[in-house]
Amino acid sequence: MIPEKMLEVIKNEGVAAIATQGEDGPHLVNTWNSYLKVMDGGRIIVPAGYYHKTEKNVAHDNRVLMTVGSRKVTGKNGPGAGFLIRGTAAFETSGPHFEAVAKFKWARAALVITVTSVEQTL
Amino acid sequence: MIPEKMLEVIKNEGVAAIATQGEDGPHLVNTWNSYLKVMDGGRIIVPAGYYHKTEKNVAHDNRVLMTVGSRKVTGKNGPGAGFLIRGTAAFETSGPHFEAVAKFKWARAALVITVTSVEQTL
Repeated sequence: MIPEKMLEVIKNEGVAAIATQGEDGPHLVNTWNSYLKVMDGGRIIVPAGYYHKTEKNVAHDNRVLMTVGSRKVTGKNGPGAGFLIRGTAAFETSGPHFEAVAKFKWARAALVITVTSVEQTL
Repeated sequence: MIPEKMLEVIKNEGVAAIATQGEDGPHLVNTWNSYLKVMDGGRIIVPAGYYHKTEKNVAHDNRVLMTVGSRKVTGKNGPGAGFLIRGTAAFETSGPHFEAVAKFKWARAALVITVTSVEQTL
């Protein structure tokens, strides 16, 4: 489900973006590649510090888009690889996914993205 | 309009994300910080190679969100600064904005983002 090259991308530090559907258009938040944890084969776990609007949006429509990229990984057109990830999201405040973000003391929840597709865009 | 720290962020290489409103949810594309050009005080010019869905979305709703970030710039909580940019977008295939992306031979248009607000998120 999650290609090796995407795992290679997130081993490099960089900013990741997560889009949700708001009542009045998209909402976009960021995290760092080094904060991401891939678990259970096809889930991406993100520590959620604020993300209040993201949580509200997910309660209405749990579909999320995420992008990650690194110029340090060879992509489709030379230096730089990027991926567009589609999935569904849930906020969890206990259990193994939350424990996986416990080292981030500011994390009030784990944003758990169950990946449904990964497309290499760069 | 565009804070100095955001200019500092995009001087560092990294992936930038641009979200538009699609008919069935948000759409997300990427570019590299090094491809961005800030012009006319408050416009961000992005070379558009594909971006066909982004163009279609912008024709219906020209509002865009963009995020940029770099771990190498000190942010609100230590290492790492990130910004959420709101603006309106247009695709231009001639004129000074298009000329600004002409060095990217694959660019079929300039995606011109007129910034309406910039929020430091990280």
